Amino acid sequence: MDHGRLKDRLAKAGQSHLLRFWDQLSPEEQAEFALELEGMNFTEINAFFKNAMETSGQTKQEKVDSRMEPLPREVLGSVTRDRDSIKEWEEEGLRCISENRVAVLLLAGGQGTRLGVSYPKGMYDVGLPSHKTLFQLQAERILRLEQLARRQHANPCCIPWYIMTSGRTMESTQEFFLKHKYFGLKQENVIFFQQGMLPAMDFSGKIILENKSTLAMAPDGNGGLYRALGKHKIVEDMERRGIAYVHVYCVDNILVKVADPAFIGFCLRKGADCGAKVVEKTNPTETVGVVCKVGGCYQVVEYSEITLATAEMRSADGRLMFNAANLANHFFSLPFLKDVINTYEPQLLHHVAQKKIPYVDTRGQLIKPDKPNGIKMEKFVFDIFQFAKTFVVYEVLREDEFAPLKNADSQDGKDNPTTARHALMSLHHRWVLNAGAHFIDENGTRLPAIPSLKDGTDLPIKCEISPLVSYGGEGLEKLVHGREFQPSLIIDERGIHEHVRNGL
Amino acid sequence: MDHGRLKDRLAKAGQSHLLRFWDQLSPEEQAEFALELEGMNFTEINAFFKNAMETSGQTKQEKVDSRMEPLPREVLGSVTRDRDSIKEWEEEGLRCISENRVAVLLLAGGQGTRLGVSYPKGMYDVGLPSHKTLFQLQAERILRLEQLARRQHANPCCIPWYIMTSGRTMESTQEFFLKHKYFGLKQENVIFFQQGMLPAMDFSGKIILENKSTLAMAPDGNGGLYRALGKHKIVEDMERRGIAYVHVYCVDNILVKVADPAFIGFCLRKGADCGAKVVEKTNPTETVGVVCKVGGCYQVVEYSEITLATAEMRSADGRLMFNAANLANHFFSLPFLKDVINTYEPQLLHHVAQKKIPYVDTRGQLIKPDKPNGIKMEKFVFDIFQFAKTFVVYEVLREDEFAPLKNADSQDGKDNPTTARHALMSLHHRWVLNAGAHFIDENGTRLPAIPSLKDGTDLPIKCEISPLVSYGGEGLEKLVHGREFQPSLIIDERGIHEHVRNGL
Repeated sequence: MDHGRLKDRLAKAGQSHLLRFWDQLSPEEQAEFALELEGMNFTEINAFFKNAMETSGQTKQEKVDSRMEPLPREVLGSVTRDRDSIKEWEEEGLRCISENRVAVLLLAGGQGTRLGVSYPKGMYDVGLPSHKTLFQLQAERILRLEQLARRQHANPCCIPWYIMTSGRTMESTQEFFLKHKYFGLKQENVIFFQQGMLPAMDFSGKIILENKSTLAMAPDGNGGLYRALGKHKIVEDMERRGIAYVHVYCVDNILVKVADPAFIGFCLRKGADCGAKVVEKTNPTETVGVVCKVGGCYQVVEYSEITLATAEMRSADGRLMFNAANLANHFFSLPFLKDVINTYEPQLLHHVAQKKIPYVDTRGQLIKPDKPNGIKMEKFVFDIFQFAKTFVVYEVLREDEFAPLKNADSQDGKDNPTTARHALMSLHHRWVLNAGAHFIDENGTRLPAIPSLKDGTDLPIKCEISPLVSYGGEGLEKLVHGREFQPSLIIDERGIHEHVRNGL
Repeated sequence: MDHGRLKDRLAKAGQSHLLRFWDQLSPEEQAEFALELEGMNFTEINAFFKNAMETSGQTKQEKVDSRMEPLPREVLGSVTRDRDSIKEWEEEGLRCISENRVAVLLLAGGQGTRLGVSYPKGMYDVGLPSHKTLFQLQAERILRLEQLARRQHANPCCIPWYIMTSGRTMESTQEFFLKHKYFGLKQENVIFFQQGMLPAMDFSGKIILENKSTLAMAPDGNGGLYRALGKHKIVEDMERRGIAYVHVYCVDNILVKVADPAFIGFCLRKGADCGAKVVEKTNPTETVGVVCKVGGCYQVVEYSEITLATAEMRSADGRLMFNAANLANHFFSLPFLKDVINTYEPQLLHHVAQKKIPYVDTRGQLIKPDKPNGIKMEKFVFDIFQFAKTFVVYEVLREDEFAPLKNADSQDGKDNPTTARHALMSLHHRWVLNAGAHFIDENGTRLPAIPSLKDGTDLPIKCEISPLVSYGGEGLEKLVHGREFQPSLIIDERGIHEHVRNGL
């Protein structure tokens, strides 16, 4: 495309300002920038902006709020309230896995900006005794689950792992997997694909220039999943492999039960085409979205959209009425996923997030604004719940399954490497106790099951079980029952290791 | 007493080592030390030690655990499950207050060691916009409650405030109150009394020397309350004033509803002689004691005494079976309190807490041990629940009523000045929203009811309501309904103040 035609296209799209610094660019910069601009569909982007801005706005809260209805009991499965069924659901899920019908799909497009690192979050080491990264923990859980399914059903089995990265994380993610030999998985069963990007725009719809020859681009939200699945023909790959169900989850939850057989089995038994895993929200002002019904359809209402009166409403049992906290942890049947990709997702509008977006001003100066100066457009993975024919919700325990890594270690201490590390070690400590072992101190005195918080050095008991040994606490009894351990305790595929403080 | 007789007494008590450095002391030190030793009842102390050590030990956990029973529903009142009754309980409590029959009793014997200060915790300023201390917040809640009771029942009314300090905190506490003119309360209605102390002992029963002429003394636990009440004839003072009910609470909870009318009214309606306020424990390994039944009697089982299996048990409704987290927030009828002091408390054994206690070795060197070298003996305020004839439990919401100040601000971020300050401002923010006001940003856009956690500077919305204006959220509607405020918002007895960022 020659420069005149590009100029013309931009003028028609109302984006001529993007060429403001054209004459100051080197020929190489010009060539690269032209290529980027030529690849963009400005008609589509402008339409996204127009539609998104029309529906966003201040009245949103009141509109959603008055129409919210709680989840009917019949769509809910609960690990605390349906304990008698869990075994059955687990078996159902494991059978389905053993038949090679389950895939997992990881949302890993985000960068660790809030975490304070420049590489993908999955590569983060939270400081466990083993120093395993989030990616490795997840890979090993897949391996263990394949092993469990194989053992139980005498069928060689594979859980393919689809990993959605973004333009910013693709290369480093792939390199990391290669370097670590796919953590023992077969390379052909780990499939990377890339999420789309959209430009940030100012409030009048002008695309923002990050510098003289670069647009301010951002991933299009985790709901970009569906468009990316379509673009990269991922569902076709799934079909080739005989996949019927997909477990979708987010990279940052250190406790995530990848392809959780109980969750999958529950969804199967309910005949669901779409399911969401949740934990109970107990504090009205917790910053989580809640799964509920609005106008007869299931959706996630975000914390910023709810009034306090609604957030504080309670059922007769004393629980919060809207207490199904969304974890970005979902089940899809493949037919539903196909319908979403082909039919439903394109109908959805983008959400608007006001952001402080660094930009170059008309004189070419880089400005870091101190209040929002533009928007990013995003879709969310849960936007398509409304289209499900049979939607179900599966409630699990926060302390067993949800500890996201979002922030750097800092004073406010929420969702950071320390809390993630502690959550995992606390879970594994409980596994070991429930398998019939005890922990003792250096004098041989048994330690309380609930460790004291008063002495920071003892908190929590250091205990890490490799996912290659146990996926969810199973198989430990024969290893540890009746034994006493002095922390740290590490159990991995090579055996049981006690690392006594100041020693070994 | 001459030195020979003292020496003799100590020898008989097996505590002769206390005079090991006698000859190295100056005459003044000798005199002072002799006076301290002469005042001590070694026979009693040795008996405390012997009895406490006999019952403590490793088998305690198993013994209690197997006998634990959950609370029967009929002894439980709940702000979330008995919402229809709360108004009635509140009115009952307020009537009782207006009749001058309610006193409050503050447990303030502890020092702020973990908090990192050398003065009493009640004097701590957590950094609220008003910079009020815990003592001032509590005093003003008493004042407001007196006003509410007076208004409703046209009866001049007073809630006497009994404050138990320890030897270490008495002087500074009294000075602080005097300096602040008792925060508007009448001096004669603020009654200080002192908790007893006991020496720390090594594992063989020898009293530990902190230095050559000082014993390692420690307060005798918050259950020292009962002995102190007897010693200082506090109940007699209560009787003179016509008090019939006492609300006992701990200094460190910034949200404490001093003399909470709903709690008092609930206990009255139930005909209780003893009641405990609790919040729901939702995580099995939370480090809180739980109120339950053991062998048919009510008691608190501490987190260190419970097995994981019991901690994780759940009722059919999915809640933890043992979920009544004790807050050190209690109701007593005066007759019961008298029986406790005169009859029951003396029967109770001390609990043993193993501690690292600095001591002087045989050569006079000060040693700071790095593992426990001795014990402190304590009783707990809840030890006497077992003696109640009608014991009740009142469950309230953690986010409304419980945010203790225990630790200094630090990385792990639990129960520190920041969490206490945020808890109070979050509560007051909710009061203002529920009174029909809205918060807006500098552009006039309404802020979400649930503030985002992503931007630390906005969290939480700064909002502080003086207890002199509202005890529990009441009375705000007429001040704020339909109005919009830009935080910070401060409402006090002088009016409504908006302190906009970077300016007044």
